Amino acid sequence: MEIKEYIEEKKKSIDSALENLLFPLKEYSALYPALSYSLLSGGKRIRPVIALATYEANKEDSRPIIPFACAIEIVHTYSLIHDDLPIMDDSNMRRGRPTLHRVYGSDMALLAGDALLSLAFEIVSSTSHEKVFTAEKLLAVVREFGKATGIRGLVGGQVMDMVTMNEENVEESMVIYIDSRKTGELMKLAIRTGAILGDAENSELVALSEFAENFGISYQIVDDILDEVATVEVTGKDTGKDRKNRKATFIALYGVDRAREIAKDFVNKSKDYLKPFGEKYKVLMDIAELSLQRMK
Amino acid sequence: MEIKEYIEEKKKSIDSALENLLFPLKEYSALYPALSYSLLSGGKRIRPVIALATYEANKEDSRPIIPFACAIEIVHTYSLIHDDLPIMDDSNMRRGRPTLHRVYGSDMALLAGDALLSLAFEIVSSTSHEKVFTAEKLLAVVREFGKATGIRGLVGGQVMDMVTMNEENVEESMVIYIDSRKTGELMKLAIRTGAILGDAENSELVALSEFAENFGISYQIVDDILDEVATVEVTGKDTGKDRKNRKATFIALYGVDRAREIAKDFVNKSKDYLKPFGEKYKVLMDIAELSLQRMK
Repeated sequence: MEIKEYIEEKKKSIDSALENLLFPLKEYSALYPALSYSLLSGGKRIRPVIALATYEANKEDSRPIIPFACAIEIVHTYSLIHDDLPIMDDSNMRRGRPTLHRVYGSDMALLAGDALLSLAFEIVSSTSHEKVFTAEKLLAVVREFGKATGIRGLVGGQVMDMVTMNEENVEESMVIYIDSRKTGELMKLAIRTGAILGDAENSELVALSEFAENFGISYQIVDDILDEVATVEVTGKDTGKDRKNRKATFIALYGVDRAREIAKDFVNKSKDYLKPFGEKYKVLMDIAELSLQRMK
Repeated sequence: MEIKEYIEEKKKSIDSALENLLFPLKEYSALYPALSYSLLSGGKRIRPVIALATYEANKEDSRPIIPFACAIEIVHTYSLIHDDLPIMDDSNMRRGRPTLHRVYGSDMALLAGDALLSLAFEIVSSTSHEKVFTAEKLLAVVREFGKATGIRGLVGGQVMDMVTMNEENVEESMVIYIDSRKTGELMKLAIRTGAILGDAENSELVALSEFAENFGISYQIVDDILDEVATVEVTGKDTGKDRKNRKATFIALYGVDRAREIAKDFVNKSKDYLKPFGEKYKVLMDIAELSLQRMK
């Protein structure tokens, strides 16, 4: 199967699983429309696809891992909602539609984000997985979610993203720090969740984590390039914001052309980590390669 | 030991454990001062004390549960930080000091709250407990944290708290819904964490949960009474806000005098659930009784 078809197929199963996961919450809260607006809005679902692909390289049937893949997309959506708030990046558009706070207000957007983070942990720790995975494995995955989303992960990246805004002379190592946490951590969470639940060898877990971190950095650079050169019609979100907010990016450091090269370098570096395993993780390598086409 | 001394002693051990838990994060993030400002600010620590008391009614040595008790206080602090934001209740004072966003900005306050929620899950799922508690127990506690903080718990209460603001004719059942989720859920989380890890019988778990829910509602009513009748010097936080924001409270429904009676009724109801166990949970009953003294 071609990689684009593979992604499309997995994306569909994630979209439908997300809808099913969300539906039972309808009766519980006035927040449901807001949750549904942000979660069922046609994202690229790259993180859950990566989790599925990693699991499938180790096990035949990927159905048991779908809720976990959804939980990763849920965490990603939470981070976008909070990041878009006026007190953060103040974004107007996301996935081709007005951002959540513009439709439901900043209070509901804040609470929707909060609810989604808790929901991810509820899903991962649900009793429904106990027939397939041991409690030890499930607890290890909870630990991954905690670390990846916390101060040493996602939030740590967001903090430095805000702190370095408007700063002169931000160093390249800081940009890598920000990108690897803001974006690399959830890619790593996706890969590690797939690998841990799929019983991958420890040596593979290390290589997969390296792949994910480098691919994540590349993915963020491509996003930043699109912010600089593309229009809202292409990206579905506000563009030109990094320049306006004077964000610390590779583009601010070296310009767009050099940033394109660096994005390619990170993808090549990421793929190198998976080459020792031959064809086993080819889907992941193809996903990384394909992601570069976004900047064309 | 008198109940006040008991609380004071436990509070000290929680304060020092929180400091130790937070310290390793110092090197990871520019967020540390904000986290430390809100977490190490001398709260009453009532939720962790309840967790410890419940555990101690079942086991001799409460040391293994201290990190879990801290995680509950961490979740509570996260909810206060987000609730105080200008896009929510817009509070200026908390625990006798300016609210976090007034000192570090709304962006850092948002991220501090986010970081604390993830930190709670990191603490609960840490490998350091594996020698004392089974993975099954730890996973059950993760599940409790997910549910208590999520859309069916804390966030669900906050949502209705915002939605019913300024509304005419809010019914008593809605006020109970809000109070039981906004405050009851974390009391219940504290009790249930202590009971599950302390191997309490299932029948006790049910009774303890009922105690916690009713005590939580009473605790919220007393808080609302203080908001109406006390000054910032007494409460350490802005007062008169519920009236200004036209919040759905028992005071708005029936006035202060009747609300005092209702708070007492809920404490009596809560204690009734624990009477079948004789002296075993006396500390919890004493804590509930003592909490009413706040409104005198």
